[in-house]
Amino acid sequence: MQLTAHQIALLLNGTVEGNPDVSVNQLAKIEEALPGSLSFLANPKYEQFLYQTQASIVILNEDFVISQPVNPTLIRVKDAYSAFSVLLDKYNTIKLNKTGIEQPSFIHPSASVGENVYIGAFAYIGANAVIGNNTRIYPQTYVGDNVKIGDDCTLFSGVKVYADCELHNRVIIHSSTVIGSDGFGFAPQKDGSYTKISQIGNVIIENDVEIGANTCIDRATMGSTIIRSGVKLDNLLQLAHNVEVGKNTVIASQTGVSGSAKIGENCIIGGQVGIVGHISIAKGSQIQAKSGIGRSIEDEGKKWAGAPATSFGNNMRAQVIFQRLPELEKTIEDLRAKLESLTKAENQ
Amino acid sequence: MQLTAHQIALLLNGTVEGNPDVSVNQLAKIEEALPGSLSFLANPKYEQFLYQTQASIVILNEDFVISQPVNPTLIRVKDAYSAFSVLLDKYNTIKLNKTGIEQPSFIHPSASVGENVYIGAFAYIGANAVIGNNTRIYPQTYVGDNVKIGDDCTLFSGVKVYADCELHNRVIIHSSTVIGSDGFGFAPQKDGSYTKISQIGNVIIENDVEIGANTCIDRATMGSTIIRSGVKLDNLLQLAHNVEVGKNTVIASQTGVSGSAKIGENCIIGGQVGIVGHISIAKGSQIQAKSGIGRSIEDEGKKWAGAPATSFGNNMRAQVIFQRLPELEKTIEDLRAKLESLTKAENQ
Amino acid sequence: MQLTAHQIALLLNGTVEGNPDVSVNQLAKIEEALPGSLSFLANPKYEQFLYQTQASIVILNEDFVISQPVNPTLIRVKDAYSAFSVLLDKYNTIKLNKTGIEQPSFIHPSASVGENVYIGAFAYIGANAVIGNNTRIYPQTYVGDNVKIGDDCTLFSGVKVYADCELHNRVIIHSSTVIGSDGFGFAPQKDGSYTKISQIGNVIIENDVEIGANTCIDRATMGSTIIRSGVKLDNLLQLAHNVEVGKNTVIASQTGVSGSAKIGENCIIGGQVGIVGHISIAKGSQIQAKSGIGRSIEDEGKKWAGAPATSFGNNMRAQVIFQRLPELEKTIEDLRAKLESLTKAENQ
Repeated sequence: MQLTAHQIALLLNGTVEGNPDVSVNQLAKIEEALPGSLSFLANPKYEQFLYQTQASIVILNEDFVISQPVNPTLIRVKDAYSAFSVLLDKYNTIKLNKTGIEQPSFIHPSASVGENVYIGAFAYIGANAVIGNNTRIYPQTYVGDNVKIGDDCTLFSGVKVYADCELHNRVIIHSSTVIGSDGFGFAPQKDGSYTKISQIGNVIIENDVEIGANTCIDRATMGSTIIRSGVKLDNLLQLAHNVEVGKNTVIASQTGVSGSAKIGENCIIGGQVGIVGHISIAKGSQIQAKSGIGRSIEDEGKKWAGAPATSFGNNMRAQVIFQRLPELEKTIEDLRAKLESLTKAENQ
Repeated sequence: MQLTAHQIALLLNGTVEGNPDVSVNQLAKIEEALPGSLSFLANPKYEQFLYQTQASIVILNEDFVISQPVNPTLIRVKDAYSAFSVLLDKYNTIKLNKTGIEQPSFIHPSASVGENVYIGAFAYIGANAVIGNNTRIYPQTYVGDNVKIGDDCTLFSGVKVYADCELHNRVIIHSSTVIGSDGFGFAPQKDGSYTKISQIGNVIIENDVEIGANTCIDRATMGSTIIRSGVKLDNLLQLAHNVEVGKNTVIASQTGVSGSAKIGENCIIGGQVGIVGHISIAKGSQIQAKSGIGRSIEDEGKKWAGAPATSFGNNMRAQVIFQRLPELEKTIEDLRAKLESLTKAENQ
Repeated sequence: MQLTAHQIALLLNGTVEGNPDVSVNQLAKIEEALPGSLSFLANPKYEQFLYQTQASIVILNEDFVISQPVNPTLIRVKDAYSAFSVLLDKYNTIKLNKTGIEQPSFIHPSASVGENVYIGAFAYIGANAVIGNNTRIYPQTYVGDNVKIGDDCTLFSGVKVYADCELHNRVIIHSSTVIGSDGFGFAPQKDGSYTKISQIGNVIIENDVEIGANTCIDRATMGSTIIRSGVKLDNLLQLAHNVEVGKNTVIASQTGVSGSAKIGENCIIGGQVGIVGHISIAKGSQIQAKSGIGRSIEDEGKKWAGAPATSFGNNMRAQVIFQRLPELEKTIEDLRAKLESLTKAENQ
């Protein structure tokens, strides 16, 4: 895709400074840009890159004052960062805009497929499955029987959605993520063995959810594991059976949430956190990476850290002293010795 | 599948109270049930749900005394929980009872496939592989050369079993789990680089093992990585080369076990635990989530916690004091000040 | 593959002691070897196995003095361990030496495929992708549009490489690993929701890198996430957008590295470690399993442990005292009581 400075300025409602006919075919960071690249400068801290860059075009704020000569053509806009974001999105939309049904793919005769979809080669669409309009199912993806997928969704290569699960609209799921595997439920027997508890529920993923790669969301034992609208989940997460994640909550990679835990809205949860089962986390909670949450959090909007977790501030203070434990032990030993000699002196 | 109260009562050897012709087509929790659902009540704590439920049929213990009028038809049985479990299993068995070979799939001419199997589209069965009777290989699953899989196994979509591995009978493996990838073995060279140590062993998975989604079990360097019968493994586990997991041991998600570690029978290991290589864990050990096990555990049947782990009780006590470290430091400082003023007074 | 002692001795430049016509068809550890196996003994600690083994042939150091009668044919070489490693590699090379294009597979007409490649059934090679010579793409693997893969690479079954990523030569990637999924970048909005930041960068993996199973390496927001030559990555790792891992660094399983972190050369990083974003780790750093690295490490070649991490030695000392916190608290209480009684005595 080749665009001139003139064309981009029209698109962004900006004004050109320099050669309007210069053209670009890629986007790049200003410090890494090669000739033929379009870049942007929003943070004045990086001004020197403007005078060094090899970019052919740079998008700049209207009010940015230049103090040295520049090589690239400039496009002046109100907000350079937003303008560049718009271009990024357009670029990405075009790149990912696949449609059509590649062969060989497997679409069960009883499945229903919307308009303008992409179904990649080796994708599998099970019996009675429903795929909405403008949805993209990449190659080697599995959509089990009775699965319902809404409009404008993207399932990248190798996603596996077990039977009976539901995805609403504008859901994005990255490669090899598994939706609807059996919850981890076994009943202990007298002889030390376990019998499986059948897992007949499903997973429901609401609108505008994005899920990273190699993440697991188990189906409910009965009922539904639910991911509310706007939730963003990173890679390699474990969400167990009957978990519920509230609207617009964000969870970083490698965090695990045990069965039946309920996480409130607008929480921010760091990476490698562990949350035990059957508890609830108040809305707006912020949980530091590597924390272990062993009981319900009832106060809204607080920060937590540690394993087991306490308030962020308290944990920070305790951690600082933990590092000084060797000194502290020495201080105590000194006190003990002094006190002993004092006591002896006293008794003489 | 539509069933009447009369039919279900016959199946469960129960007695009907209410309309025997009422019919249901799904199973649900009593508090979530819609009309047309079958539910159960076992725990008297939830009695009020019985009077509020929209379920059409509820299974109830023989001796359960009702204190208010109820809407649903009741089926009285000896043990409501067990009876419902029986129905769950039947429901699940019917749902998962796929057979036949979908096309296109790849079955090497030298492979041997048993009777009554399911092989989904895009599944791959390598050279000399053996698949037992009643086994289900879901779409997009990979069974490498010389792999042996027993009877009544289920490999969900996207499971990958490398060459030469063995699965015995009634093994269940969830999506995208990898069995038999190379162990992580490299020999450091003088120039700082590493050369790969070839990994020519395999993985053996015995009877009645269930393994979650996105789990990794590496092949042995030589010999076998072994998962003994009855073991239950959750999602996103890492079991390294030459690990052995004893009979009926249960391991929760995101736990990692390093090379050549031996875990005893009937252990219960929480999530996000790390176990170092070349150690052994005594049978019946219980290890709390997030623990780090750095040395062998020789005492059987004990509980452990912390990283590095100590006895569960000791760790709990130390954790409580950890949270109070800021106060403790203040106490020490007070003692030091008092002792100093006392010493000064003494010396005057 | 059947080989006689005579043939193996020729291959390894060794001398035969015993029957040169005895033949073997597998490799095994000396303590587990069955008849028909070839084994080796390098560590004199295991000498007794030599007199008990059922192996048909054992490779032994030239200068190893035998003190009892032995059953197997011996092959004497300079260095038994190295000689056996050579055989292991040969064995593995033969086993993995697949070539040809299985059907059905999907190779876009615009893709370019080198000589002597293996492309397994249900593999997908996207538009403008380039596959080098002697490279093996196992079944059900996904190679996105514009991906470049060099010579002598192996991508096992189910690997997913998103569009625009680059793999250089001799790269090995294990099953279900995902290369180039979107970085986890979202801009918070006033209403509490998030909008996705398009991720248009890629991942570059240099020569001689090996990556385990179910690992995730996200593409850069712009620019590249880079894995330098000789790096060895284990299973279930998370490497976020714009991360860079230096030459010959080794990272064990389940470790997570957040966005834009830069890891130096020749580091050794244990399992389940967490590294925050936008920091750098000095070359030669060694980080203990389960550590949490919250700030940049500037001193080269040091050992670190703990979460948050400090120097390995300091952390070990603090950990020891942590375990004794209950005693320590008691000591402090005793001191307080004694001091109080002393003060009282003083004031009387």
